[in-house]
Amino acid sequence: MTDDAPHDHPPPGLLPAGLIDLLPPEAEREAALVETLMAAFGAHGYERVKPPLLEFEDSLLAGSGAAVAEQTFRLMDPVSQRMMGLRADTTPQVARIAATRLGLQARPLRLCYAGQVLRVRGTQIAPERQLPQVGVELIGSDAAAADAEVAVAAAEALARAGVAGATLDISLPTMAGTLLEAAGLTVPALEARGVRRKPAQDMVAALRLGIDRKDPVAVLTVAERAAPLAVDLADLLPRLLRAAGPAEAALAALAAMDLPTAARRIADNAAEVVAAIRARDPDLRMTLDPMEFRGFPYHTGVAFTVFGPGATGELGRGGRYLSLNEEPATGMSLYPDAVQRAAPPPAAPRRLFAPLGTAEATLAALRAQGYATVRALSAADAPRALRCSHILRDGSPVPVTQEEG
Amino acid sequence: MTDDAPHDHPPPGLLPAGLIDLLPPEAEREAALVETLMAAFGAHGYERVKPPLLEFEDSLLAGSGAAVAEQTFRLMDPVSQRMMGLRADTTPQVARIAATRLGLQARPLRLCYAGQVLRVRGTQIAPERQLPQVGVELIGSDAAAADAEVAVAAAEALARAGVAGATLDISLPTMAGTLLEAAGLTVPALEARGVRRKPAQDMVAALRLGIDRKDPVAVLTVAERAAPLAVDLADLLPRLLRAAGPAEAALAALAAMDLPTAARRIADNAAEVVAAIRARDPDLRMTLDPMEFRGFPYHTGVAFTVFGPGATGELGRGGRYLSLNEEPATGMSLYPDAVQRAAPPPAAPRRLFAPLGTAEATLAALRAQGYATVRALSAADAPRALRCSHILRDGSPVPVTQEEG
Repeated sequence: MTDDAPHDHPPPGLLPAGLIDLLPPEAEREAALVETLMAAFGAHGYERVKPPLLEFEDSLLAGSGAAVAEQTFRLMDPVSQRMMGLRADTTPQVARIAATRLGLQARPLRLCYAGQVLRVRGTQIAPERQLPQVGVELIGSDAAAADAEVAVAAAEALARAGVAGATLDISLPTMAGTLLEAAGLTVPALEARGVRRKPAQDMVAALRLGIDRKDPVAVLTVAERAAPLAVDLADLLPRLLRAAGPAEAALAALAAMDLPTAARRIADNAAEVVAAIRARDPDLRMTLDPMEFRGFPYHTGVAFTVFGPGATGELGRGGRYLSLNEEPATGMSLYPDAVQRAAPPPAAPRRLFAPLGTAEATLAALRAQGYATVRALSAADAPRALRCSHILRDGSPVPVTQEEG
Repeated sequence: MTDDAPHDHPPPGLLPAGLIDLLPPEAEREAALVETLMAAFGAHGYERVKPPLLEFEDSLLAGSGAAVAEQTFRLMDPVSQRMMGLRADTTPQVARIAATRLGLQARPLRLCYAGQVLRVRGTQIAPERQLPQVGVELIGSDAAAADAEVAVAAAEALARAGVAGATLDISLPTMAGTLLEAAGLTVPALEARGVRRKPAQDMVAALRLGIDRKDPVAVLTVAERAAPLAVDLADLLPRLLRAAGPAEAALAALAAMDLPTAARRIADNAAEVVAAIRARDPDLRMTLDPMEFRGFPYHTGVAFTVFGPGATGELGRGGRYLSLNEEPATGMSLYPDAVQRAAPPPAAPRRLFAPLGTAEATLAALRAQGYATVRALSAADAPRALRCSHILRDGSPVPVTQEEG
């Protein structure tokens, strides 16, 4: 312990920043919501796996796990003397299961999971360091129908949870890079044309920054310095940025453009995914932003962000990636805490106060009708203090009135 | 890293000892079981709380948490620079919540919880280092009816999970010590009679060991050296040890004995608890072993162990204790992994293969009937390989036959 470390004890009941107790009724609500979401995934053929909270860091941080390496708590396993990590994301664990223990099971493999993830630090806008995570992974299919399936299943899960009017934002994280590559605006291509490495790297960074900020002027100003280009960026780039919007309109705009082959392939795939989703869920709101690439860096095809209605924010994320052993995979992860904020509150439970001496059979029958029965344990127990909505009178539940203290 | 520490990487997919992946269908089964148990507790008025997996070790290891201090993983919180623990038991966290955030809520307080606990090392017969834990705590009542309530709720939870014929083993962990105290066989009492501290400590240890081994001859041989005794141990001890058995018979045997006052109070309380359980659950098998004291060291009244039918072993534990701020409390914790081994396997889910091009409305209707629908994503997908029990034929599900490959 260094001199400036705290020596006093924290007040009793104080929790570390970003770690909270869920109290009644929130804890029950979250648990019920998780099971509702999981039931929807189960109904779409996804089978539950439950990886452990701790595993060796080598396997936890492999593949897509590298993206959360900095956010992963580490601790020493006294049994093996190896370092273990406390998972910050469940997807890498599901990938490990798919590649090893379920490596010989027929593809496509449909797996779902629900559990807690922990991270070393929260952020100012998302201070939580323990979060529930629920999701699906569809491993071993490169079909557009697979991407559509995880999106449709997530939308149905949200609908079952009472979230109406969610929007699926589709982005194409590989499009910007593909376009720059086709235009000859990569570090190796620029070097081949005599630009030195450092200026080439600066140029590419500036191009990506301009695209990320949706600033075609900035991009074209930089690109001009490398003219002539193999692709007419001055024509394409503003049109691609403007295309962002409702999915079908964005696809129509893309269809009208003269895209380089590799970019055309990405656009065609997006069109296939959107059509497959639309065929299954005619009412789902979908937007498409072809030049957005903020998705997790490991996405290799469409990326999804699910937004709740109004200002309820991001409810989940997903998209196509390569799983271990280069298996094509797609998936979707939902954030139950965010979904809970977007969902209508459930009906308050019926909580029945049973005075001293009530027969057990009476209460068992009422429990079977959905009442939570609360037995008086002493004459001092009172229905309102114990937050009961009902009291048993002459064998029947009646609402608790003001007088019943 | 020391010289004899391993330098090589573990094979991919290897998990640390005692940490496992639950695969389909076990993971689903465990989750469903946990929610079944929790629903039973909810029906008895217990409200769910969800404490975090990590908290400051000072609060995690306070009170009954001290019993699992050695089994608790510690890690440094980079935010506060204090040590945190990864919970090895949920009861201390519920006690903290009851004493702080719910400190002003009316008593008795009925709380339930479900979650994972982790421990530093497994044992040879229980190698798991991550275990699900489900339980109830009833805080703020010292009534025998409170102890009865947690036992009855646990038995009903097991019955809902399909475990018939569970046995409730009741022990009285304070009885042996109370009897020795009444007989003047404590270290201070022996010292007051001129025995030096070390021999006095050895005597008390030998007495407790003899009782633990149910060996009255060993106990009386040691006790003789301190004769005369204030209690007729030679009469009482063999009768108390023999009394162990079906609860009502054991209580009758206790009633016939001339017990010292403090021991009589313990026996009377046990009689009250058993009567209160019997009034609510006439069929529950109950045993009582008055001299057993293997319960957790913090028990202050009756202690419970729940056994499954046949050789299915221990399904849960509980009993009376003092919560934080010396509040009287009682509780019960069930082990879902053990309950799962004792419960009948659930019916296999109906898993329906939907050939390419199946209309979504058809599948939505079948999902509403309880089918898990598995869409073909390519012409290569086959129902048996995807472990489907049914296939859609002319709009209706029919069982998959051998030929369907």
